[in-house]
Amino acid sequence: MNGAEASSPQGPALRVAFQGEPGAYSEDAVRRFFRRSDVRPLPTVRRVFEAVETGAAGSGVVPLENSQAGSINETYDLLVRHGVRIVGEVVIRVDHALLALPGTRLGDVRRVLSHPQALAQCDEFLATLDAEVVPVYDTAGAAKLVAEQGVPEQAAVAGRRAGELYGLHVLAEGIQTFPDNFTKFAVIAATGLPASRPADKTSIVFGTANVPGALHRCLGGFAERGINLLKIESRPEGGRPWRYRFYLDFEAGADDPAAAAALDELSSHASYVRVLGSYPAWRD
Amino acid sequence: MNGAEASSPQGPALRVAFQGEPGAYSEDAVRRFFRRSDVRPLPTVRRVFEAVETGAAGSGVVPLENSQAGSINETYDLLVRHGVRIVGEVVIRVDHALLALPGTRLGDVRRVLSHPQALAQCDEFLATLDAEVVPVYDTAGAAKLVAEQGVPEQAAVAGRRAGELYGLHVLAEGIQTFPDNFTKFAVIAATGLPASRPADKTSIVFGTANVPGALHRCLGGFAERGINLLKIESRPEGGRPWRYRFYLDFEAGADDPAAAAALDELSSHASYVRVLGSYPAWRD
Repeated sequence: MNGAEASSPQGPALRVAFQGEPGAYSEDAVRRFFRRSDVRPLPTVRRVFEAVETGAAGSGVVPLENSQAGSINETYDLLVRHGVRIVGEVVIRVDHALLALPGTRLGDVRRVLSHPQALAQCDEFLATLDAEVVPVYDTAGAAKLVAEQGVPEQAAVAGRRAGELYGLHVLAEGIQTFPDNFTKFAVIAATGLPASRPADKTSIVFGTANVPGALHRCLGGFAERGINLLKIESRPEGGRPWRYRFYLDFEAGADDPAAAAALDELSSHASYVRVLGSYPAWRD
Repeated sequence: MNGAEASSPQGPALRVAFQGEPGAYSEDAVRRFFRRSDVRPLPTVRRVFEAVETGAAGSGVVPLENSQAGSINETYDLLVRHGVRIVGEVVIRVDHALLALPGTRLGDVRRVLSHPQALAQCDEFLATLDAEVVPVYDTAGAAKLVAEQGVPEQAAVAGRRAGELYGLHVLAEGIQTFPDNFTKFAVIAATGLPASRPADKTSIVFGTANVPGALHRCLGGFAERGINLLKIESRPEGGRPWRYRFYLDFEAGADDPAAAAALDELSSHASYVRVLGSYPAWRD
């Protein structure tokens, strides 16, 4: 099991914030991770971070990365700006469907609404339609819009459950380019949540000096100790053009002696290091 | 000077494809790079790659990265899927303005349309408005929509030049969060263009084995030879969840003996290496 003990049937339901309308994939992720939860839909990922930081929600579930479309840059940036910790992760399978009003046929569709990441994941299927693609903020929100606006030539890319919630009909299923399509979410909280397993994964962010070999030296302490790097991601520093910060996930808890030594060594090469969280890796 | 010789006043104007409506920042980039060009606006970045690959355009200018919002994932993915080369780069300063119909005041604005990257770059300013943000495919296209739809409470985030082209009024200027805001574009072509300076920058893509230390070993040949890494970017492989390819820019031409040796060494560690292009770095 992966979920936090705080969500056990004995304890009170934890208030968990997510971005999107009811029926969003983020809500599916909340339900996979927490056995009991009082869900709180919010309009933006930024609002989820704010709710967690201020205590308006006990924790939040935010999208980190899709296995096809890649990292959600906004979440990576918010992790640095806000004083929250990653306390867990959850991975869900994402099967996109093309949803429309009952009576609409595939050939009738002229506009397809969805989140830009979902549109990117279905780009090959969408290129076969004679339709304009329209980015909106949320997959389930797209389904809701199609249902509310009642325009027969509109369709939404979203999950089956969103279609059921808003009374839409499935025109096509599994329309993502790569059948094995997963989204990874981070579970964030202001303080640690009691976890059901020891931490075996750590997420950090660091900066490097702008000199030859700097990044290579920063990774050396992990390579020497045989610590597997699961992911490295660069993002601009923002205020300083063409300078980057690096996000690194490695396969060990931060308290593991080898990992602690590698982090120490990294600190001597990097311009700064911050541990975003150390938590149990998701296991299905 | 940075532009290609093919664009010199003596030669014929080169047909250059870009994504967006007239007035787009991409068009500004074309005009900075090519002294003479016959511009061809296309609706998507994918169409720009296709036009270059089929010869419908002699070259294309595609957005690679913004100094605040980060890499344009779509372009990085298209660079791998299409048989084109990076033959140059061009960097332009991006100053966003909030544009609306003449007569609209700042307090009237209820909907702001723009490209998601431009909206991200202006998120702090936009958060001060009581307005919904609506992602559309292009900054200049947003300005055109605001002008065409004639709804006074709508505004667009785009460049001043787009506002002038479509008869909009400037409500606020320099609204990006970080004043120093630049976008880097790649110039792509099916074959090399005669360049005005020797190549001093190279862009490659490579894959690693999924073992501890793999990425560290791949970077070693560059660190040993003192070759500066300008950028590293990871993107999912797509079909294989949680496997990545790495895009690397380094500060040397691919024919430079040290760079050639580092590339050889990389080939022995990486699962594949492809040189996307070697070209003169942009100098303002």
